[in-house]
Order: sequence, then structure tokens, then C-alpha cells
Amino acid sequence: MVSPEERLKELGIELPGTPAPLGAYVPCVRSGNLLFLSGMLPLRKGKLTRTGRVGEGVSLGDAQEDARQVVINALSIMKAELGTLEKVVRCVKVTGFIASAADFVQQPAVLNAASELLLTIFGDRGRHARAAVGVPVLPLNSPLEVEFIFEVTEKETA
Amino acid sequence: MVSPEERLKELGIELPGTPAPLGAYVPCVRSGNLLFLSGMLPLRKGKLTRTGRVGEGVSLGDAQEDARQVVINALSIMKAELGTLEKVVRCVKVTGFIASAADFVQQPAVLNAASELLLTIFGDRGRHARAAVGVPVLPLNSPLEVEFIFEVTEKETA
Amino acid sequence: MVSPEERLKELGIELPGTPAPLGAYVPCVRSGNLLFLSGMLPLRKGKLTRTGRVGEGVSLGDAQEDARQVVINALSIMKAELGTLEKVVRCVKVTGFIASAADFVQQPAVLNAASELLLTIFGDRGRHARAAVGVPVLPLNSPLEVEFIFEVTEKETA
Repeated sequence: MVSPEERLKELGIELPGTPAPLGAYVPCVRSGNLLFLSGMLPLRKGKLTRTGRVGEGVSLGDAQEDARQVVINALSIMKAELGTLEKVVRCVKVTGFIASAADFVQQPAVLNAASELLLTIFGDRGRHARAAVGVPVLPLNSPLEVEFIFEVTEKETA
Repeated sequence: MVSPEERLKELGIELPGTPAPLGAYVPCVRSGNLLFLSGMLPLRKGKLTRTGRVGEGVSLGDAQEDARQVVINALSIMKAELGTLEKVVRCVKVTGFIASAADFVQQPAVLNAASELLLTIFGDRGRHARAAVGVPVLPLNSPLEVEFIFEVTEKETA
Repeated sequence: MVSPEERLKELGIELPGTPAPLGAYVPCVRSGNLLFLSGMLPLRKGKLTRTGRVGEGVSLGDAQEDARQVVINALSIMKAELGTLEKVVRCVKVTGFIASAADFVQQPAVLNAASELLLTIFGDRGRHARAAVGVPVLPLNSPLEVEFIFEVTEKETA
């Protein structure tokens, strides 16, 4: 089986440093074998890729690119926490908040870009439950914010 | 004690087939004894019961009917996953996103229809923590989307 | 080490009675060692501190005061559930929905007031993952709603 790290290499994806939280919180917390990640924004080198609402200033294609960036940022955080992505047992839940024009209803199409990248990297372990929700505005005027719950091997057995 | 399936029969509710996900995700994921369901829409035979915002095109009563439909869809998914609803230990958390007119503030009244149906079907096991949130727009222009976390008997002991 | 209750006393914070749920749900549900709290509003003696959107009728400073109130309400619920806040192992996840003017993007600054109070009361155990999301409208026209997941000592060992 190809490891997540090997798959990332094949895809030409390099994990960046862990994005700094925007406030008095931490990037992730582990409880038992669940790893709860904070809401991730499409930051690249500390800056948002773009701002605005999908269906207004931001196109579907751009939002999908942002959804992939958010997965990459999430993996960076998990790699820093776990040492290796091979400790990921399962992606459990993805919740995506999409800053949406009032008539934009393709939130699932935006998040599919994130979901498909997870499947490519983790195979069956990447199959997750998901919710996609439209919102009017997000921190820093980000076009989307995504939070993740992963099941990981427990500290004791890892 | 009356089983959830018997209660459904008494109520004249027949569980439909599992609604197909709207993208590259799965209807639910189990981790330990927690079952995380994807965000459910009020689909009936694959079609939304209606579209629009509650307090504008959609009345409170219609939204409550949709909230009940969402519970029925969630139970269908759980029955397919677990084989029997008797493996439900507890409904843990319900999070409801209600597409809301700018001045609609009765999100809890919408979700009560879902909560009360859970109580009717599961008794004390149906008592859950809950959050109700207004949003401007949801996938497919659905009037609401609800996600659920259930505690279920573990795979090993079931 | 100073207990959470002693810290609250130092801060001059008295925990109020448990706020009543706004519908057919319960304030919190424990599953294993996770405690899921319902979405909390900034209620004081059963009434919202204020109504409206942050960045319109509600200032950043007022919203931060509300965020602290929400933490106090959450602690009241946990104290009623657990008997003592010393059973809190970790604050795992905070999700804040902020009723936001269309151009208000400082949701993290609002939630920092909640996060910092958790850190003051629980020390390192208060460090949590977090998501901050803007929404158009909330129950009762509340300016914010916050939900929490805590890790607590298990029933058996407590």
C-alpha cells in the first residue's frame, strides 16, 4: 500500500509549515483516538489565497482550488501532531462553511475538491461523512472554512 | 420496552432507501461507538420537499415537516449501517442549519419537530444536545440541513 | 495547582443556575469521556444580554462580553453535570457562530474573549481547537451562539 506521504509526493504536493492560529486557540486537539482540527482557511504562506463570496467575486473553480489548499493545510497540522500521516485510521467528518452569494447553492461541488483529494491521498481511509453549509461571511473575508475530525491511532499504541 | 422499529410502525412511518450523498462522501462514519452522520437534507425519493428560506417562501410549519423528514432519512441511514435501530445507545448531538430570512429567529421551533420525533421514537435515548443556527443559503437551496452524532453499541460487542 | 472553582472565585465570577434549553433538547450529553454541550446563547437570568448583528447594532466589545457570558453559562452546565469542574480533562473544541454584518470579518476577535477566559480558568487544559463562522441570524436574534466539546473523566473512574 502506498503511504499518504508517498501519494503526496506523487501528486507534487509539499506540505507547508503549520498555519498559525488566528487567536487564542490551537490547531488541533486529540481526545482518545479522535483528532479535532480547528476551522482551516485557504492560507498560503500566511496569506489568504483570495477573499470574497463564492458565486460573486469568487468562481466555483477558485473555491475548489481553495478547498484543496485547506486539505493541504490540515495535513500539515496532522503531520506536525502525529509525526507521520500513517497514523491516520480514518477521516471521520468534514464540515465546510462556504461564504456564498445569496443564490449560490453548489456548496457540495466546492467541497468535492477537498473530499476527492482526501480520497486520493488516503484511499478508503479518506472516506468521510460531510456537511456543506452556506454562510454570508467568514474570518478575514475568507471564501471558505473547513473543519475536520480524524480518527488516529491512540497515543498509547502508536 | 417498545423498540424504535415498533414505534416507527405505530407512527405509520416507513423508512425509505438511503438517500444518495450529493458528492464524494459517505452517509455516515463510525469511530469507536460514535456514529457521525453527514448533513441531511429533506429529500423524499431523491427530491427536495421544497426550496427557499424559512420566514420567506417557506413557512414554519413546512420547515417543521422538513425537520421530521430529515430525521426519517437519518434513521434510514442508521438502519442500513447498523442493521437494527436497537443498537442506538443515545442520540448525542443534533446540529441544525436553517436557511433563514434575515428576520427569522425561530430556528429552535423548526428543530423541535426533529427533536420531538427523536424522543417519540427512542424515548430517553433520544434526548440530545443541540445547536440551531440560521444561514443564508444551503445546498440545492434546501430550507434546512441537519447533522447528527449518535452513540451506538460498538462493533465488537454488537 | 489552582482549581477551576478557585480561579472563578479569584475572578469574581459566580456561576448562575443552568440556563433552560429553548426546546426539546438537553443542555449536554456525555458519551464516553466526551461531553457535548448544546449551542449556548449569552443569556443572563434567562434573558439575552442584547440582540442584533456584530458590526451593525452590536459592537466588537459587546460581543466579546457576550462570548465570556457564554463560557460562564457553559461552565454552569458542566458543574451541574459533573459536580465539580475538576473533572474537566481538556476543552477539546469550541465552535462559535457570530451573527455578523455583511462586512464584519473579525469573528476570531469575538471568540478570543471566550478562548482567553477558558485559558484563565483551566490553564493548559483550556487550550482548544476552534472554528469561528459568520451567520446572518441566530435564535432569538442573539448576537452569537457557541457550542463546546469537553473531555471529562469517565463516569466509571470519576
